[in-house]
Amino acid sequence: MRVQQIFDPSTLRYDAAGLVPCIAQEEGTGDVLMMAWMNAEAVERTLSTGRITYWSRSRSALWIKGESSGHVQELVDLRIDCDRDCLLAIVQQTGPACHTNRKTCFFTAVRDGEETELMGPDPV
Amino acid sequence: MRVQQIFDPSTLRYDAAGLVPCIAQEEGTGDVLMMAWMNAEAVERTLSTGRITYWSRSRSALWIKGESSGHVQELVDLRIDCDRDCLLAIVQQTGPACHTNRKTCFFTAVRDGEETELMGPDPV
Repeated sequence: MRVQQIFDPSTLRYDAAGLVPCIAQEEGTGDVLMMAWMNAEAVERTLSTGRITYWSRSRSALWIKGESSGHVQELVDLRIDCDRDCLLAIVQQTGPACHTNRKTCFFTAVRDGEETELMGPDPV
Repeated sequence: MRVQQIFDPSTLRYDAAGLVPCIAQEEGTGDVLMMAWMNAEAVERTLSTGRITYWSRSRSALWIKGESSGHVQELVDLRIDCDRDCLLAIVQQTGPACHTNRKTCFFTAVRDGEETELMGPDPV
Protein backbone atom coordinates (compact mmCIF):
# COMPACT_ATOMS: atom_id res chain seq x y z
CA MET A 1 0.00 0.00 0.00
CA ARG A 2 1.33 3.40 -0.96
CA VAL A 3 0.63 5.99 1.70
CA GLN A 4 1.42 9.60 0.90
CA GLN A 5 1.20 12.72 2.99
CA ILE A 6 2.86 16.11 3.05
CA PHE A 7 6.14 15.94 4.95
CA ASP A 8 6.46 18.34 7.85
CA PRO A 9 9.90 18.38 9.55
CA SER A 10 8.25 19.35 12.85
CA THR A 11 6.58 15.92 12.99
CA LEU A 12 9.91 14.14 13.52
CA ARG A 13 10.70 13.03 17.05
CA TYR A 14 13.61 15.17 18.15
CA ASP A 15 15.57 14.55 21.35
CA ALA A 16 15.69 16.96 24.30
CA ALA A 17 18.22 19.09 22.40
CA GLY A 18 15.91 19.27 19.37
CA LEU A 19 18.08 16.95 17.31
CA VAL A 20 17.62 13.77 15.31
CA PRO A 21 20.46 11.52 14.12
CA CYS A 22 21.00 11.28 10.37
CA ILE A 23 22.96 8.44 8.78
CA ALA A 24 24.65 9.24 5.46
CA GLN A 25 24.89 6.30 3.04
CA GLU A 26 26.62 6.53 -0.32
CA GLU A 27 24.50 5.86 -3.37
CA GLY A 28 25.76 2.98 -5.46
CA THR A 29 28.32 1.51 -3.07
CA GLY A 30 25.94 1.46 -0.10
CA ASP A 31 28.83 2.45 2.16
CA VAL A 32 27.74 4.01 5.44
CA LEU A 33 29.80 7.19 5.54
CA MET A 34 28.95 8.93 8.80
CA MET A 35 26.29 9.79 11.32
CA ALA A 36 25.60 13.34 12.44
CA TRP A 37 22.72 15.36 13.81
CA MET A 38 20.03 17.58 12.33
CA ASN A 39 17.56 19.97 13.87
CA ALA A 40 14.31 20.87 12.10
CA GLU A 41 15.96 23.72 10.22
CA ALA A 42 18.78 21.47 9.01
CA VAL A 43 16.20 18.97 7.74
CA GLU A 44 14.37 21.76 5.89
CA ARG A 45 17.55 23.16 4.37
CA THR A 46 18.76 19.72 3.34
CA LEU A 47 15.52 19.18 1.45
CA SER A 48 15.26 22.68 -0.03
CA THR A 49 18.91 22.95 -1.13
CA GLY A 50 19.65 19.30 -1.93
CA ARG A 51 22.88 19.66 0.04
CA ILE A 52 23.19 17.75 3.30
CA THR A 53 23.11 20.20 6.19
CA TYR A 54 23.69 19.02 9.75
CA TRP A 55 23.65 20.75 13.10
CA SER A 56 27.11 20.98 14.58
CA ARG A 57 26.81 20.23 18.29
CA SER A 58 30.35 21.48 18.96
CA ARG A 59 29.85 24.78 17.13
CA SER A 60 26.09 25.12 17.86
CA ALA A 61 25.53 26.15 14.28
CA LEU A 62 24.16 24.82 11.02
CA TRP A 63 26.84 22.85 9.21
CA ILE A 64 26.61 22.58 5.46
CA LYS A 65 28.69 19.45 4.98
CA GLY A 66 31.75 20.22 2.86
CA GLU A 67 31.25 23.98 2.93
CA SER A 68 34.86 24.53 3.93
CA SER A 69 36.46 21.24 2.81
CA GLY A 70 34.65 20.90 -0.51
CA HIS A 71 33.65 17.37 0.54
CA VAL A 72 29.97 17.99 -0.03
CA GLN A 73 27.10 15.54 0.15
CA GLU A 74 24.34 15.89 -2.43
CA LEU A 75 21.01 14.49 -1.34
CA VAL A 76 19.66 11.64 -3.46
CA ASP A 77 16.89 10.41 -1.17
CA LEU A 78 15.87 11.09 2.43
CA ARG A 79 14.32 8.30 4.49
CA ILE A 80 12.54 8.38 7.86
CA ASP A 81 12.51 5.42 10.20
CA CYS A 82 9.43 3.79 11.71
CA ASP A 83 9.74 5.71 14.99
CA ARG A 84 10.39 9.02 13.20
CA ASP A 85 13.44 9.54 15.38
CA CYS A 86 16.21 8.70 12.90
CA LEU A 87 16.94 9.72 9.30
CA LEU A 88 18.83 7.98 6.51
CA ALA A 89 20.19 10.19 3.76
CA ILE A 90 21.26 8.53 0.52
CA VAL A 91 23.97 10.81 -0.83
CA GLN A 92 26.49 11.44 -3.55
CA GLN A 93 29.71 12.12 -1.69
CA THR A 94 32.48 14.29 -3.09
CA GLY A 95 35.87 13.35 -1.62
CA PRO A 96 36.24 11.67 1.76
CA ALA A 97 33.34 12.01 4.19
CA CYS A 98 35.49 11.82 7.32
CA HIS A 99 37.45 14.74 8.74
CA THR A 100 40.43 12.36 8.99
CA ASN A 101 40.41 12.26 5.18
CA ARG A 102 39.09 8.73 5.00
CA LYS A 103 36.14 7.77 2.85
CA THR A 104 34.01 6.78 5.84
CA CYS A 105 34.10 7.63 9.53
CA PHE A 106 33.67 3.92 10.32
CA PHE A 107 37.22 2.91 9.47
CA THR A 108 37.96 1.06 12.70
CA ALA A 109 36.80 -2.52 13.22
CA VAL A 110 36.77 -4.58 16.39
CA ARG A 111 38.11 -8.03 15.57
CA ASP A 112 39.25 -10.69 18.02
CA GLY A 113 39.08 -8.09 20.78
CA GLU A 114 41.36 -5.64 19.03
CA GLU A 115 40.78 -2.43 17.12
CA THR A 116 42.00 -2.55 13.55
CA GLU A 117 42.06 0.30 11.05
CA LEU A 118 40.53 -0.83 7.78
CA MET A 119 41.83 2.05 5.70
CA GLY A 120 44.25 4.94 5.90
CA PRO A 121 43.63 8.56 4.92
CA ASP A 122 43.22 9.38 1.23
CA PRO A 123 46.35 10.79 -0.40
CA VAL A 124 46.14 14.60 -0.37
CA MET B 1 49.16 1.94 8.48
CA ARG B 2 47.56 -0.79 10.52
CA VAL B 3 47.01 0.28 14.10
CA GLN B 4 45.90 -2.33 16.59
CA GLN B 5 45.01 -2.07 20.22
CA ILE B 6 42.86 -3.97 22.67
CA PHE B 7 39.24 -2.82 22.43
CA ASP B 8 37.73 -1.60 25.68
CA PRO B 9 34.00 -0.75 25.50
CA SER B 10 34.45 1.84 28.26
CA THR B 11 36.55 3.95 25.88
CA LEU B 12 33.57 4.73 23.65
CA ARG B 13 32.00 8.17 24.07
CA TYR B 14 28.59 7.54 25.56
CA ASP B 15 25.95 10.24 25.90
CA ALA B 16 24.60 11.54 29.23
CA ALA B 17 22.39 8.43 29.46
CA GLY B 18 25.39 6.15 28.94
CA LEU B 19 24.32 5.20 25.43
CA VAL B 20 25.85 5.18 21.98
CA PRO B 21 23.86 4.82 18.73
CA CYS B 22 24.46 1.66 16.70
CA ILE B 23 23.52 1.40 13.02
CA ALA B 24 22.73 -2.11 11.75
CA GLN B 25 23.66 -2.74 8.12
CA GLU B 26 22.93 -5.99 6.33
CA GLU B 27 25.90 -7.89 4.98
CA GLY B 28 25.77 -8.44 1.26
CA THR B 29 22.93 -6.09 0.34
CA GLY B 30 24.36 -3.14 2.29
CA ASP B 31 20.83 -2.19 3.33
CA VAL B 32 20.68 -0.01 6.43
CA LEU B 33 18.17 -1.87 8.59
CA MET B 34 17.77 0.17 11.77
CA MET B 35 19.44 2.33 14.37
CA ALA B 36 19.18 1.62 18.07
CA TRP B 37 21.18 2.26 21.22
CA MET B 38 23.78 0.34 23.21
CA ASN B 39 25.30 0.85 26.62
CA ALA B 40 28.70 -0.56 27.52
CA GLU B 41 27.20 -3.86 28.65
CA ALA B 42 25.25 -4.21 25.39
CA VAL B 43 28.47 -3.64 23.43
CA GLU B 44 30.26 -6.29 25.49
CA ARG B 45 27.45 -8.82 25.11
CA THR B 46 27.16 -8.17 21.37
CA LEU B 47 30.85 -8.98 21.01
CA SER B 48 30.92 -11.93 23.38
CA THR B 49 27.75 -13.62 22.09
CA GLY B 50 27.86 -12.58 18.42
CA ARG B 51 24.21 -11.65 18.71
CA ILE B 52 23.31 -7.96 18.45
CA THR B 53 22.17 -6.70 21.84
CA TYR B 54 20.81 -3.20 22.25
CA TRP B 55 19.62 -1.20 25.23
CA SER B 56 15.88 -0.62 25.11
CA ARG B 57 15.25 2.95 26.21
CA SER B 58 11.51 2.30 26.58
CA ARG B 59 11.95 -0.82 28.72
CA SER B 60 15.23 0.25 30.38
CA ALA B 61 16.62 -3.21 29.81
CA LEU B 62 19.05 -5.09 27.62
CA TRP B 63 17.35 -6.09 24.39
CA ILE B 64 18.67 -9.11 22.55
CA LYS B 65 17.36 -8.29 19.09
CA GLY B 66 14.95 -10.98 17.94
CA GLU B 67 14.78 -12.73 21.31
CA SER B 68 10.98 -12.74 21.22
CA SER B 69 10.32 -12.31 17.46
CA GLY B 70 13.03 -14.65 16.22
CA HIS B 71 14.26 -11.85 13.96
CA VAL B 72 17.79 -12.03 15.25
CA GLN B 73 20.86 -10.17 14.07
CA GLU B 74 24.12 -12.07 13.99
CA LEU B 75 27.22 -9.90 14.21
CA VAL B 76 29.54 -10.05 11.23
CA ASP B 77 31.72 -7.02 11.98
CA LEU B 78 31.57 -4.14 14.44
CA ARG B 79 32.92 -0.75 13.43
CA ILE B 80 33.63 2.37 15.50
CA ASP B 81 33.49 5.85 14.03
CA CYS B 82 36.25 8.45 14.19
CA ASP B 83 34.72 10.22 17.20
CA ARG B 84 34.06 6.93 19.02
CA ASP B 85 30.45 8.02 19.59
CA CYS B 86 28.69 5.88 16.98
CA LEU B 87 28.85 2.20 16.04
CA LEU B 88 28.15 0.39 12.78
CA ALA B 89 27.26 -3.29 13.05
CA ILE B 90 27.43 -5.38 9.89
CA VAL B 91 24.88 -8.13 10.47
CA GLN B 92 23.15 -11.16 9.10
CA GLN B 93 19.47 -10.45 9.60
CA THR B 94 16.88 -13.19 10.04
CA GLY B 95 13.43 -12.03 8.93
CA PRO B 96 12.40 -8.37 8.91
CA ALA B 97 14.42 -6.00 11.11
CA CYS B 98 11.53 -3.60 11.71
CA HIS B 99 8.79 -4.19 14.29
CA THR B 100 6.30 -3.28 11.53
CA ASN B 101 7.42 -6.48 9.75
CA ARG B 102 9.29 -4.62 7.05
CA LYS B 103 12.84 -5.49 6.10
CA THR B 104 14.16 -2.09 7.18
CA CYS B 105 12.90 0.61 9.55
CA PHE B 106 13.71 3.20 6.87
CA PHE B 107 10.76 2.39 4.62
CA THR B 108 9.44 5.94 4.27
CA ALA B 109 10.99 8.37 1.77
CA VAL B 110 10.47 12.10 1.47
CA ARG B 111 10.01 12.89 -2.20
CA ASP B 112 8.69 16.12 -3.69
CA GLY B 113 7.64 17.21 -0.21
CA GLU B 114 5.58 14.10 0.43
CA GLU B 115 6.11 10.97 2.48
CA THR B 116 6.00 7.79 0.44
CA GLU B 117 6.16 4.24 1.74
CA LEU B 118 8.72 2.29 -0.25
CA MET B 119 7.60 -1.15 0.92
CA GLY B 120 4.77 -2.83 2.77
CA PRO B 121 5.04 -5.39 5.57
CA ASP B 122 6.33 -8.84 4.75
CA PRO B 123 3.62 -11.48 4.33
CA VAL B 124 3.15 -13.31 7.64
